[in-house]
Amino acid sequence: MKDLQTLRSGIDDIDKEILGLFLKRMELCKGVADYKKANNLPVFQGGREQQVLDRIMALTNNKDLEKGTAALFANIMDISKILQNRTILAESPDYTFTVPDFDGAKKIGCQGTSGANSEAAARSVFGDREFTFYPSFEDVFKAVQSGELDYGVLPVQNSTAGSVDSTYDLMAKYPVYIVREVIIEINHCLAAKNDMPLPDIEMVYSHPQALAQCESFLRKNRLRTAGYGNTATAAENVMNSKENIAAICSVECAERMGMKILARDIADVSLNRTQFIIISKDMQVAPDSDSVSVMLTIPHKEGSLYRMLTKFYVNDMNLIRIESRPIRDGSFNVMFFLDFTGKITDPSVKAVMRDLEENCGTFRCIGTYKSE
Amino acid sequence: MKDLQTLRSGIDDIDKEILGLFLKRMELCKGVADYKKANNLPVFQGGREQQVLDRIMALTNNKDLEKGTAALFANIMDISKILQNRTILAESPDYTFTVPDFDGAKKIGCQGTSGANSEAAARSVFGDREFTFYPSFEDVFKAVQSGELDYGVLPVQNSTAGSVDSTYDLMAKYPVYIVREVIIEINHCLAAKNDMPLPDIEMVYSHPQALAQCESFLRKNRLRTAGYGNTATAAENVMNSKENIAAICSVECAERMGMKILARDIADVSLNRTQFIIISKDMQVAPDSDSVSVMLTIPHKEGSLYRMLTKFYVNDMNLIRIESRPIRDGSFNVMFFLDFTGKITDPSVKAVMRDLEENCGTFRCIGTYKSE
Repeated sequence: MKDLQTLRSGIDDIDKEILGLFLKRMELCKGVADYKKANNLPVFQGGREQQVLDRIMALTNNKDLEKGTAALFANIMDISKILQNRTILAESPDYTFTVPDFDGAKKIGCQGTSGANSEAAARSVFGDREFTFYPSFEDVFKAVQSGELDYGVLPVQNSTAGSVDSTYDLMAKYPVYIVREVIIEINHCLAAKNDMPLPDIEMVYSHPQALAQCESFLRKNRLRTAGYGNTATAAENVMNSKENIAAICSVECAERMGMKILARDIADVSLNRTQFIIISKDMQVAPDSDSVSVMLTIPHKEGSLYRMLTKFYVNDMNLIRIESRPIRDGSFNVMFFLDFTGKITDPSVKAVMRDLEENCGTFRCIGTYKSE
Repeated sequence: MKDLQTLRSGIDDIDKEILGLFLKRMELCKGVADYKKANNLPVFQGGREQQVLDRIMALTNNKDLEKGTAALFANIMDISKILQNRTILAESPDYTFTVPDFDGAKKIGCQGTSGANSEAAARSVFGDREFTFYPSFEDVFKAVQSGELDYGVLPVQNSTAGSVDSTYDLMAKYPVYIVREVIIEINHCLAAKNDMPLPDIEMVYSHPQALAQCESFLRKNRLRTAGYGNTATAAENVMNSKENIAAICSVECAERMGMKILARDIADVSLNRTQFIIISKDMQVAPDSDSVSVMLTIPHKEGSLYRMLTKFYVNDMNLIRIESRPIRDGSFNVMFFLDFTGKITDPSVKAVMRDLEENCGTFRCIGTYKSE
């Protein structure tokens, strides 16, 4: 048996040779890209790719390794395509985008009522301006699309409860763009009209999610609970009632309503955060944007997701988040929502976008913003 | 400019050389695997991997291609590791698993009440046996874990509304296994105690998922809605109430309860299916099982998901489904739930499992079953 040192140095020598050949291959691919560009041919030519893979599988001559070599050459071709797209796009004119104007914006909207966490998210970007509240998430999307609002503020995920599915479904339905991301810490407190000992509380009202997040506290103090539409309306209800009831809401909400805070930090997981997005009608790009969100469907072929991720990986775009939602056609097929690091003006990012547009069933860039 | 034919034939020659070198490299890797096995060393040695990548980046000598060559060699090493694991596991004894006994099972449970869709799913596997109903999903998990139930039946995803998040969260919490998958077609109707015109209905009760699935119908008819534990208990509530309320439930459920069906086929998408899983306390493997479900966290490193998918791809295991849920530590980090094609007794599948166990923060195989 050879020793590890000898084996590894043999591998290193082979790697050096493979690298040399790979770089030569890339030179030829650049030639192919130039040729395709001059003759206005698409980068991706499915027939040629299958030809190369079939040839490799036939040459492998070892059933056990066939899949491995096919994977390797699929990878080599994916890297080549990305470099070809870069070459083709290198001289294409830069897109020009509007820069968001959060300071100048006048019409800003969110779902719910004043005191809700959406308002806190809006306030952290837009300060003490007036916000319009809409009954549903969809109303906010509609108002942004129609131009009634400059910006809409909506939750996308909570660190305890997970994704806000309806926001994703609405992103697929309305042609709007994400222009900013905001993360808000949700600090649940127990609040009432007046100071009172906990055993005197007859009922605690709040959104079922908030009640679930404070389950240990409620159980320990033997408090009875009832679900309510949202935390802010639960607080309002407490203030309007003559009974000895309390609400679970944010500290900010309790303070705004002039409530007495009976207990702070009552959530089971003390750090509880919600991520919001700010949407606009047009694509707007802040100069410090470093993340890109896309929405796409992948072909029903083995390794589709894997091979798509190759494109991002080779271009140094790191996957931040992957979310899926049904396409609602009775099948279990999904639409993917992906967040990646990358600047939209970077030629590699442009190359990936072009590649995805050419190869995905559905593809839409749904925005770019600074990742929090 | 060279013509396309010449360029491509040049590429083909290079590919042949790369293939030859790659196969030689695999020979040496097999030597490394034998050495590691003889000396009881782990397959994955992080330091060595970084060394190889650093060397490749330094040799590339072209800033623009560095990331591409690093990606290529990460891929080459990932393929090598898989083959090493296969070598090491080739002679390891086969696991032995119990075969599920659906025909002989006596204690079967689901959430809700008789008439719920879970019962229809249970019936399609267990026929006309008696089922035990539990108030919550968690109660079903607890009963399976304690041995009170042989099998539990729970929904995991709907073709219109998407994943049933709580089932995933409970899979992470309880050490139980998926032993079967069942898909049921759901036919929603609007049902009440007595016949009445839709405008007279004061409130429609149902499970929030069912309400989401019938959103268009509800909006068009301006019906107010309220969430309820499940469709069958919502129907029960309607039957016990004196108010003018209605429920969304299955036609089967409405008929069982002697309700009046006010509207049929009210879901947004007429084909509306729900996938259920059957869980058991121990890992059980049906002979026709061809899918594997795993639960894992991936390291916080660039390309983690991509490189993990390489393992499945090279082993011919096709990704069927990817789902994520928060790990609930206040961060937005997630636990991934992945479904892949593959037979658990296949040496390649065993090699992937071993590899994941070694490289993931958290990893658990949560079952294997025949994909529907």
